[in-house]
Amino acid sequence: MQTKDMIATHPDVKGNVNQDLLQFIDAAYECAQACTSCADACLAEEMVAELRQCIRLNLDCADVCSATATVGSRRTGSNEEVIRKMLEACASACRLCGDECERHASMHEHCRICAESCRRCAKACQAAMKTFESVDSAAAHSGARTSRLGAHRA
Amino acid sequence: MQTKDMIATHPDVKGNVNQDLLQFIDAAYECAQACTSCADACLAEEMVAELRQCIRLNLDCADVCSATATVGSRRTGSNEEVIRKMLEACASACRLCGDECERHASMHEHCRICAESCRRCAKACQAAMKTFESVDSAAAHSGARTSRLGAHRA
Amino acid sequence: MQTKDMIATHPDVKGNVNQDLLQFIDAAYECAQACTSCADACLAEEMVAELRQCIRLNLDCADVCSATATVGSRRTGSNEEVIRKMLEACASACRLCGDECERHASMHEHCRICAESCRRCAKACQAAMKTFESVDSAAAHSGARTSRLGAHRA
Amino acid sequence: MQTKDMIATHPDVKGNVNQDLLQFIDAAYECAQACTSCADACLAEEMVAELRQCIRLNLDCADVCSATATVGSRRTGSNEEVIRKMLEACASACRLCGDECERHASMHEHCRICAESCRRCAKACQAAMKTFESVDSAAAHSGARTSRLGAHRA
Repeated sequence: MQTKDMIATHPDVKGNVNQDLLQFIDAAYECAQACTSCADACLAEEMVAELRQCIRLNLDCADVCSATATVGSRRTGSNEEVIRKMLEACASACRLCGDECERHASMHEHCRICAESCRRCAKACQAAMKTFESVDSAAAHSGARTSRLGAHRA
Repeated sequence: MQTKDMIATHPDVKGNVNQDLLQFIDAAYECAQACTSCADACLAEEMVAELRQCIRLNLDCADVCSATATVGSRRTGSNEEVIRKMLEACASACRLCGDECERHASMHEHCRICAESCRRCAKACQAAMKTFESVDSAAAHSGARTSRLGAHRA
Repeated sequence: MQTKDMIATHPDVKGNVNQDLLQFIDAAYECAQACTSCADACLAEEMVAELRQCIRLNLDCADVCSATATVGSRRTGSNEEVIRKMLEACASACRLCGDECERHASMHEHCRICAESCRRCAKACQAAMKTFESVDSAAAHSGARTSRLGAHRA
Repeated sequence: MQTKDMIATHPDVKGNVNQDLLQFIDAAYECAQACTSCADACLAEEMVAELRQCIRLNLDCADVCSATATVGSRRTGSNEEVIRKMLEACASACRLCGDECERHASMHEHCRICAESCRRCAKACQAAMKTFESVDSAAAHSGARTSRLGAHRA
């Protein structure tokens, strides 16, 4: 992924990137792929009937990770309230999906690898969420254009 | 949209649908389309430079609405914590995008129609969120399969 | 859906909409919802092991319909070669998914309704594809900005 | 990305992966991110009015890459006709978007990096498409479950 180079060259960012948010974006694309594959592999297992909840959580997690990575990639203008809430939803999706995959990890290698991917993404979510805590939430609500998302950790 | 018929025939729902969540799903697909079109129409306006924030919020809102409608459509197993958090993110995305579009409504008809679509979806989000309040959140966390999402308002 | 009003107010379209493409967009959003629900309902059926191929085709069809509806909604600039190829992929996805759902229609009401949704979307795809045939494909390749996608059937 | 490990552990693949399709999947996730970022960075440029076509192609390319990567990640059952057509659409989207970004590469670093990402993904598309040529298309049409997508290049 070239996420860092792409975001660092945004005219409002100018190299001053939010490292934690960048790392989340990469982790979220990876987790979306892993969850898509894990849902698909679970569906092909003989014991598919016992993997229904796992498939459900995998599909939801893939959808939430993709949307959060996309929204989190944008730097024009400002939409911090939505990024924060999507990161919260993504952290939940990854934690719950990781817990469920973990339960099948000893039997299914795809669940073991997917659980690890979910853990990494949940952790990256938490780190990215912390970079938004110092932001004046009133400013975020007003959609102030002066926000410099790239510079949060500068 | 045939959302109601599709969800009512799910084997765990058996006709006992959550009307508010159904109405949200239809509103969210509509809002995703409206926001995709509004971002695209704003981009073609002469005054595009003044519509950057509107385009940004439109694109984010379309992504969040699509993901929330998809996650909210599933009834196999249980993932209520994630649905609730996605509804919260979706309500924010629609409110902020609706506010921004409203500011351009007198100049651009696409912004006026899109603002209405965002308002309807935000309202449908709020109604759907209320149907989750009575749910025992511990049960939601455990991923209990006995949950009957379709029957919340029965 | 307010697709027609949204696209008719695009500054480059000015009311002169491509009716067949509009109808496809609505059909594709509906089909994406139906396929998402059908995959989910099949997963909850006792005979899930026999519905694997149906779930696979449903998930693929939902992804292809969503992407094609989104790409087909844009009117700024020009990208007709990509719209045409996406419509071809979407027609295949809907035909194959409709055929598979049809096979389970007598047993599962969700498959019956979803098959109908796939048929409608495949038909709308075919009609929309025809509106692109008269376009000079060389012009489409060059990405000429003079294209008026809204006016194809004028 | 852990795409290879995820797909190699699918019960129907058993380690016998289609390397070209795997490489395409990784390239498509990367290209989706690059195009999302490039559309967003172009929107923030002073000369945004001259970058409309670039933004349009970037948004379309991101949508097509995401959908193709998702559909291409599935191995349960069979849907080869749809994968092939999505790869064709994706190759077009990447070529056209890469050409347009290339025109702005000397002025905008994000366009230069995105053009490279589009080129890599278009090339990976072509390689992946070749692995489907030897497939009996009649078999693909019938949705035969005996297909072993993982083993195409074995």
